[in-house]
Amino acid sequence: MNVVVPYPELVSTVAGVFADRGVPRDRADTAARALVHGDLTGVTSHGLVNLTRLYLPLLESGRADPAADMEVLTDLGACVLADAHRTLGLWSASQAMDLAVSRAERYGVGVVSLRGATHIGCAGFHAARAADRGVIGLVTSNCGGQTIARPPGGLAKVLGTNPLALACPAGDRHPFVLDMSTTVVPTGRIRAAARADEPIPVGWLAAADGTPVTDPADYDRGEGHLLWLGSTPETGAYKGFGLGLLVEVLSALVSGAALGPVSAGDTDDDIGVMALAVAPARLRPGFADDAGALFSALLGCPPADPRRPVVYPGWPEGERAAWRRAHGVPLPVDLYEELRSSTLRATG
Amino acid sequence: MNVVVPYPELVSTVAGVFADRGVPRDRADTAARALVHGDLTGVTSHGLVNLTRLYLPLLESGRADPAADMEVLTDLGACVLADAHRTLGLWSASQAMDLAVSRAERYGVGVVSLRGATHIGCAGFHAARAADRGVIGLVTSNCGGQTIARPPGGLAKVLGTNPLALACPAGDRHPFVLDMSTTVVPTGRIRAAARADEPIPVGWLAAADGTPVTDPADYDRGEGHLLWLGSTPETGAYKGFGLGLLVEVLSALVSGAALGPVSAGDTDDDIGVMALAVAPARLRPGFADDAGALFSALLGCPPADPRRPVVYPGWPEGERAAWRRAHGVPLPVDLYEELRSSTLRATG
Repeated sequence: MNVVVPYPELVSTVAGVFADRGVPRDRADTAARALVHGDLTGVTSHGLVNLTRLYLPLLESGRADPAADMEVLTDLGACVLADAHRTLGLWSASQAMDLAVSRAERYGVGVVSLRGATHIGCAGFHAARAADRGVIGLVTSNCGGQTIARPPGGLAKVLGTNPLALACPAGDRHPFVLDMSTTVVPTGRIRAAARADEPIPVGWLAAADGTPVTDPADYDRGEGHLLWLGSTPETGAYKGFGLGLLVEVLSALVSGAALGPVSAGDTDDDIGVMALAVAPARLRPGFADDAGALFSALLGCPPADPRRPVVYPGWPEGERAAWRRAHGVPLPVDLYEELRSSTLRATG
Repeated sequence: MNVVVPYPELVSTVAGVFADRGVPRDRADTAARALVHGDLTGVTSHGLVNLTRLYLPLLESGRADPAADMEVLTDLGACVLADAHRTLGLWSASQAMDLAVSRAERYGVGVVSLRGATHIGCAGFHAARAADRGVIGLVTSNCGGQTIARPPGGLAKVLGTNPLALACPAGDRHPFVLDMSTTVVPTGRIRAAARADEPIPVGWLAAADGTPVTDPADYDRGEGHLLWLGSTPETGAYKGFGLGLLVEVLSALVSGAALGPVSAGDTDDDIGVMALAVAPARLRPGFADDAGALFSALLGCPPADPRRPVVYPGWPEGERAAWRRAHGVPLPVDLYEELRSSTLRATG
């Protein structure tokens, strides 16, 4: 059963929970918007469900620092290296993107490389801040020292699910927002299937010898290993693994954050993030019109099934978010109760 | 049957073929190295086989201009927009990467955005030039107005195979070089299977209703449509399509080149290319050592099959290239004869 919560109320409630735990008010507001972005767009695996499972434990254990300041270590103008000093990644990744956009508005391109970050939530939320300012934004994040997936043909886990997100304005359409793990699915999709006791498609998990695994519970039993995008070597698993490495390189090797295959611990501390912005309007006239034409043409592609129009990544999420901003965000009752008790716990 | 040609002889012969058609000598040398990179590393679909099928026809028809100059349209320091003016993409993409690296050495990041390019060959060849200089290089290229693949659920072709390549130094190991089409395979792999009359794996082609197609000849009959990385919606086809769009945006929407879904023609003229370089050594000490540690750790991952050690993209290609540089490049006899007749045709 769901309750429907007005979007502004949901944001301010979550922001209050963060603020009550020492997060400065403006950061708490950004972090709350980043968190409920999942519920707003329908990517519930990265939404409010993670408040009590991920972010509050980070703050309560001291693995995240609510009020530390980010520290710029090197500033070359178009390119900045900063230490996030364990501040909430839900906030620091947006700060990084905003700074990258400002630099891109001046230099055409801007890169902000972060080390010492904590879990950033939906990478697409942060990337989309660039599109809102008419700029292209790319966000990549590794998982610090946490390892989840094995290389093709390997027996040890070496990298996390290493997400990347790219956002681009699309004229008067919803912005293009690609937001993806480089594994075939994020772990949340596997665990959701396990909770629902539903089989998963061939291509998500495999046994050590490569045999497909369709029981999602095998993942947490260590008998099903999460595959890369492409699933098998024949259908591109080396590309998915390579994209995971691309994210590791851009996020953590550039910044000097923890590297999955090297780090001694196996936790998602000291995450590396790259925020890259490109401002085509600084390079040439006509960018905004061309972007509108590109994405309109894609929406105009004739569909195989007339009831299912062709869309691009970000369009369905944009539709859903617009509706929910106007009419409220549906939340499972138990999740809403969890949020209310988080409010009480800090203030009581 | 193969002949084995010493690498320097192969490069100088191919460079001579380009030079005889009006390509200035230094460009002809770079273009020749870019072309035979495919044969050197084992990616034969992008090697010498394309000389008479792709590059000489481009020059002979006037679609490529052997001696035009690239023109810088906007120079913001860290970010440059240039028109390649139909020069050989085998050369212009390397020029773009070299300039991006020089800018990254100064500003930490460098972007060179090209419009008006022609086919660039192996994107990884150009990206690897950055790694040779201790810098991370990313190259993306769209296919101009040429459309090859449909969006998931769509009936019209909208984008090309849109490759991307990332190269990164790996200490004293072969550099990490990811070089991939964003479709599950490039069209060359389908046509090679068709010539060999061999079935292809499920996941490469599908009929209009989504049914898997395993006869590669169905591709050129228009009965099998090339799928994106991820193959089906259940296993990530929307991610592959999104990555294809990411490449379209970075390569062609930034530069103002032809866009697949918008362009009136369906040829690979007016290709867009992005060359992006990041110089971590400008940001922090320790990058080179960390890179060595990362890629060494990957090679040390225990393999499932002891006869098949774990590798990362670029390592097998690096091994093969080192051997062939020393011992010669194997070429099918008919391909070698084709090269010899190209030499004779221009000089005779």
